[in-house]
Amino acid sequence: MADSTTTGSMIPIPVKLDTAEIGSKEDLYHLELLQRATNYLAASMIFLQKNTLLERPLSKEDIKGRLLGHWGTCPGINLIYAHCNYLIKKHSIPMFLVTGPGHGAPACLANLFVEGSLAKFYPQYSVDKDGLSELIKSFSWPHGFPSHVNSEVPGQIHEGGELGYALSVSFGAIMDSPDLIVTCIVGDGEAETGPTATAWHSYKFIDPAESGAVIPILHVNGFKISEETIYGVMEDTEIATLFTGFGYQVRVVSDLNNINADMATSMEWAYQEIRRIQNCARSGNPICKPRWPMLVLRTPKGWTGPKELHGQRIEGSFRSHQVPLPHAKVDDEELHLLESWLKSYRFHELFDLSKNSFIMEVLETLPKEELRMGIRKETYAAYEPLDLPDYKELMIQKGDNESCMKVVGQYCSRVIKMNPKRFRIFSPDELVSNKLDAVFQVTHRNFQWSRQTSYKGGRVIEILSEHTCQGWMQGYTLTGRIALFPSYETFLGIITTMMIQYAKFLKIGMETSWRLPIGSLNYIETSTLWRQEHNGFSHQNPSFINNLLNMKYNNIRIYLPADANCFLITIAHCLRAKNYINLMIGSKNPTPVWLSPEEAESHCIAGASIWKFSSTDDGLDPDVVLVGCGAEVTFEVIAAASLLKKDAPELRVRVVNVLDLMILPRYGSHPHSLDDEAFDSLFTSDKPIIFNFHGYQSVIRTLLFDRPNSQRITVLGYKEEGTTTTPFRMLTANETSRFDVVIAVIHSASKFHPKLSIRAHELISSYKHKIVEHDKYIEKYGKDPENLMNKPEF
Amino acid sequence: MADSTTTGSMIPIPVKLDTAEIGSKEDLYHLELLQRATNYLAASMIFLQKNTLLERPLSKEDIKGRLLGHWGTCPGINLIYAHCNYLIKKHSIPMFLVTGPGHGAPACLANLFVEGSLAKFYPQYSVDKDGLSELIKSFSWPHGFPSHVNSEVPGQIHEGGELGYALSVSFGAIMDSPDLIVTCIVGDGEAETGPTATAWHSYKFIDPAESGAVIPILHVNGFKISEETIYGVMEDTEIATLFTGFGYQVRVVSDLNNINADMATSMEWAYQEIRRIQNCARSGNPICKPRWPMLVLRTPKGWTGPKELHGQRIEGSFRSHQVPLPHAKVDDEELHLLESWLKSYRFHELFDLSKNSFIMEVLETLPKEELRMGIRKETYAAYEPLDLPDYKELMIQKGDNESCMKVVGQYCSRVIKMNPKRFRIFSPDELVSNKLDAVFQVTHRNFQWSRQTSYKGGRVIEILSEHTCQGWMQGYTLTGRIALFPSYETFLGIITTMMIQYAKFLKIGMETSWRLPIGSLNYIETSTLWRQEHNGFSHQNPSFINNLLNMKYNNIRIYLPADANCFLITIAHCLRAKNYINLMIGSKNPTPVWLSPEEAESHCIAGASIWKFSSTDDGLDPDVVLVGCGAEVTFEVIAAASLLKKDAPELRVRVVNVLDLMILPRYGSHPHSLDDEAFDSLFTSDKPIIFNFHGYQSVIRTLLFDRPNSQRITVLGYKEEGTTTTPFRMLTANETSRFDVVIAVIHSASKFHPKLSIRAHELISSYKHKIVEHDKYIEKYGKDPENLMNKPEF
Repeated sequence: MADSTTTGSMIPIPVKLDTAEIGSKEDLYHLELLQRATNYLAASMIFLQKNTLLERPLSKEDIKGRLLGHWGTCPGINLIYAHCNYLIKKHSIPMFLVTGPGHGAPACLANLFVEGSLAKFYPQYSVDKDGLSELIKSFSWPHGFPSHVNSEVPGQIHEGGELGYALSVSFGAIMDSPDLIVTCIVGDGEAETGPTATAWHSYKFIDPAESGAVIPILHVNGFKISEETIYGVMEDTEIATLFTGFGYQVRVVSDLNNINADMATSMEWAYQEIRRIQNCARSGNPICKPRWPMLVLRTPKGWTGPKELHGQRIEGSFRSHQVPLPHAKVDDEELHLLESWLKSYRFHELFDLSKNSFIMEVLETLPKEELRMGIRKETYAAYEPLDLPDYKELMIQKGDNESCMKVVGQYCSRVIKMNPKRFRIFSPDELVSNKLDAVFQVTHRNFQWSRQTSYKGGRVIEILSEHTCQGWMQGYTLTGRIALFPSYETFLGIITTMMIQYAKFLKIGMETSWRLPIGSLNYIETSTLWRQEHNGFSHQNPSFINNLLNMKYNNIRIYLPADANCFLITIAHCLRAKNYINLMIGSKNPTPVWLSPEEAESHCIAGASIWKFSSTDDGLDPDVVLVGCGAEVTFEVIAAASLLKKDAPELRVRVVNVLDLMILPRYGSHPHSLDDEAFDSLFTSDKPIIFNFHGYQSVIRTLLFDRPNSQRITVLGYKEEGTTTTPFRMLTANETSRFDVVIAVIHSASKFHPKLSIRAHELISSYKHKIVEHDKYIEKYGKDPENLMNKPEF
Repeated sequence: MADSTTTGSMIPIPVKLDTAEIGSKEDLYHLELLQRATNYLAASMIFLQKNTLLERPLSKEDIKGRLLGHWGTCPGINLIYAHCNYLIKKHSIPMFLVTGPGHGAPACLANLFVEGSLAKFYPQYSVDKDGLSELIKSFSWPHGFPSHVNSEVPGQIHEGGELGYALSVSFGAIMDSPDLIVTCIVGDGEAETGPTATAWHSYKFIDPAESGAVIPILHVNGFKISEETIYGVMEDTEIATLFTGFGYQVRVVSDLNNINADMATSMEWAYQEIRRIQNCARSGNPICKPRWPMLVLRTPKGWTGPKELHGQRIEGSFRSHQVPLPHAKVDDEELHLLESWLKSYRFHELFDLSKNSFIMEVLETLPKEELRMGIRKETYAAYEPLDLPDYKELMIQKGDNESCMKVVGQYCSRVIKMNPKRFRIFSPDELVSNKLDAVFQVTHRNFQWSRQTSYKGGRVIEILSEHTCQGWMQGYTLTGRIALFPSYETFLGIITTMMIQYAKFLKIGMETSWRLPIGSLNYIETSTLWRQEHNGFSHQNPSFINNLLNMKYNNIRIYLPADANCFLITIAHCLRAKNYINLMIGSKNPTPVWLSPEEAESHCIAGASIWKFSSTDDGLDPDVVLVGCGAEVTFEVIAAASLLKKDAPELRVRVVNVLDLMILPRYGSHPHSLDDEAFDSLFTSDKPIIFNFHGYQSVIRTLLFDRPNSQRITVLGYKEEGTTTTPFRMLTANETSRFDVVIAVIHSASKFHPKLSIRAHELISSYKHKIVEHDKYIEKYGKDPENLMNKPEF
């Protein structure tokens, strides 16, 4: 790799383009007509509720009561969409478009309408006058298409709104799809975000032999909502230098007088460069560090829109970002400007009213129907389930100690072997640290710029960017494949809002009849806070659970298996499951296997059960219920039960383990939530409950709020106390240790248990003393007393 | 700006360096000695508990029981720290260091120890044998310094752990401190993160006349935890091209044989370039697009550490990331290797046991005491409160309609005028959209690459990167100034974990006696979900409240003022407050001013109060309590009370508004939480409560879980239902509209109110019908019925 003679040159290699074929006068004319049509439609959608074909002079009644939508980015999207069509038609390429500036929905919808994709999924938007009027009128109207691209819009795999993720999602989509090309528009506003800024590195992880390609188009129109953009004030040489540094060949398209010819040539150049790189790799002569093509497209914001209003520039300024003529319904001058603007597209020349259809020339640029971007199967109907190995073969004998992640690593190795092209693991450089390295017995990392790992078809990608991992996983999953994102528990929080935006896309997608099921997003949180005692406070944050819990309950699943057998069953389930966001939380450290394979099966099916081996209530009428949810805190609960058996033998103690967090909330709120009877049979209807929880107390408080008699519940959990210390000190600092559990039990139960209440004060004192003594030991010896790891006696 | 002759050249301009003065043989020798000392200390900290000066052969008992710490990055940090000292000494520069690889705490602590800064704050770490042994022994030991840099470590303003934020924090620190230089180490792992990738643009927002400078050092050691880094596989030309594209002059330091000479020259070059740029700007001849200097430092990971173990490379590989000899306590070979490694630094030559101090030559590189990086006032004692205007002058007459953000904009204008160099507003391109543009009457944006805004001392920075805004705010705040970060409610969630990491730094900082108070982080969430009906589902996410609520209650304040007067009082309070993270949530749309200035004062002091004007309980013994918390949902509560007065006049209704969310939790848990008596006097002890909340229901469930009788509480809130629709449809979709409130009231209250229970079914049906009718109207006309905006009648 170090030998520069073998690497892709930093200077673009001129490709021989057959210019006779590209951008003929006729083709350019057709390209222009298509854009005139889509520009007209996009503008009309923002403004008109009637008279959508301008068959009579525009009047104020024709204007919508609320003007919603973003014009500024639309003409650029229409230009790009048209040229995607042109390229697809020319080469019969499987391609679709990911639109970073998702607020440009009018442009996307306009193109989908013209090409007939909208009508395929929504008959009311037939490609005729009625459909056209319906489209224009219902855009941004209650129950119509929303103002931003979402999962109701055909051909889309990306929620438009929160900027920054289009590029990484595009790269996820082309992985393991060698023929596919995704064109990705990155707006110059979006390009300022961190997640986009690092996603440019994605090509360093794309093997041109096994995967497809992205054509990134940085669309520089110079303005955000109200400020100039960074890329807008950079000169061509500055932009070209930057992206050359990222590893690209850069071609700037900015000649407005010949923009269609320039764009056609540039797209062809990008395509030929992609094929050249792919052909080399696929013929066994891969280019080292290939320099993939990208385009920089400079067009004025709101191009072709109104030039000026009240002496202020609109076209080419931030004023065209949203609605460039905001008072068109009440102001004569604006109405007049709007009418001139719309008429400038001469839509009547493009749509033949007598034939009730577009003229042929408008449609000339479109590829044949099965290649149109709005109906690509990859975007809505490509899911195939994984072939899954039998997890039973990997289960551990009850009583042994085992790391959950070790068995997951072994399980994933088998999944990889059985699914060499449909399963990937995305990790922020933590796979080995998370003890999942068993997968490296059957696969590699896939880092093309590394001598060690390039061209080996590795299923693992590690980039130190959770945002990029998440974007890749979204793109991969939404195009029908399945992925796993294991992470340090703490750092998964980095992609909180990406998960939320995905959950929104998923929720609406599931309500959208034509979208077929997809695989689930699968997260593993390990290196959890309780065992980040060595890395300290910054590595202790279980907030992702809380954030997932606020999403629609239909789409979320949260599991905290307390041992390796339960984790195996859980991951097998999650990799099979469809349409969910699965969060699995478990330990990478060896912990006791509490349940036999059969017991684990029953436990996982139930989601929670009484663990009789550590209970002293004989299954009936306990005085107090101890609940553990999560590996380390469950260990403490079991240890507490053992202590209680010795020190408070009169107390009938029940131990419950909760594996599936979603059994807890009010019946009917989640598909897994227990009915009252089942809930009471586990937790009783009135006995004190000491709930020792893996994460923040707020999680359990939220889930149990609506259960009757909630005042009987004491919730223990992580309280933001942490540093570099010992595992046991982490527990006592947050009052989740066995001693704290015992104290909480005595505190609660003694109210109802006269015999115990006499000794309560003394018992509590002695346990508080034990905590102090342990802390002294820990400070002195720099480690926990070894007996704390012993399996509790019963 | 377009005229390239006036802009900074993309090719570095050679600076005339007086080489006789820089890097003399003697100086280089001293630099080397200092690094030998700090490398020895850093390595020892990870391994030794006894025999810390190697006075006898190393034995297994000398080794710590748990080996915790990260060696790999330490030698590079020690190199940089030494050269910062050298530069500071030479030019008497106010400078400190921000260490991106915060896991390199041993290196930071070693330098702080040698320079005596540790001893200033922690007498036990005196610069003698005892202090040295204590430092080595207690590192990563319970109650000692943690393994990652945190706020207990002098000279630090950055929590080490979650990577990605060092660079933006550094830029925040130098704003408005014209003499200050911050050297910022960015690890090549950290450089892969999105937040870092876009933070390189920060210089485009630094005015060299008014602010100081950052010397970014990209430290390329080639490996992350277990994978090669992206920057590690890039060649010098590739890296130089990339950062030239970002706008820098790049100097690569990589000659290991002459590294101290190379580094000394390079740091001097960087300093001279900075001064050249600053001098031009400060003498009225600013360079357009100045190309600031940066260094790329290539050193092997774990440099100077053990070379090989069991035939596997350690130095220069990922194996030296953490503990390079993990079994030194039990394995003879590793112990032996450790001993040779430690001895290679010949520490006995550096520390004179007879004098119980370092030899003079080790300390020669250090600047005079007041310039040492560990005791810079900016890092722990620089806070000065703002001069704040009288908000009373801006208060609005009761009964008027006003946007909270309009008055905040006016208030901030006055704050800016009174504090021209100590207050900034960071915004992700939303200031105008958030209706805070009144500030532009007194200030500008501060975008140096824009012709319009450069060199005008603007107090507003807008970059479309929440991460960068947050980092800048942290750096600015932690160095004693005060900032405001207004944001669309939804998109503040993007920096969730940055806020959490900051909260951790703050919590420990407040427990650290020598850290003096700082200003609060001030967030405004506006463009809230209830009025993002036009942008749709992707713009509707109030999760930041939940995440803040999981932090330590001592440090957090959450306010939801329901009108402009209350918001004015709130922001004035927050800008005065110290050591908090303040979250203020309010509307940018005009809403009724419910309270007179005097009433608003009382209400804000109380945090919540009964709003008598819309209650019908005469202040006594209500049948039901309606609670509004947040502007739009409070409006609905008041409207519901009006409907109930008409339709269920027999019901004694109390209306309560909660402004300060933290009055709600159990008494004693938060400084603001109400005691039982005060709680009951607002909410009664047993009457049904219908709580209409601005955000997710989980917030209120969490906060009220421990209040007695929580089963009487019905929580309404945002349920992840949304799209592009009308404001009222957003409310009904989430069951928070006035009609839903009425239905919930009747549902709850009729259980206790026999007369009402007879009519309950009929009333509920009629209100459900109203919802359906309103939805039909909205779908037909594309807007809400206008009467919904009328002020409710009483």
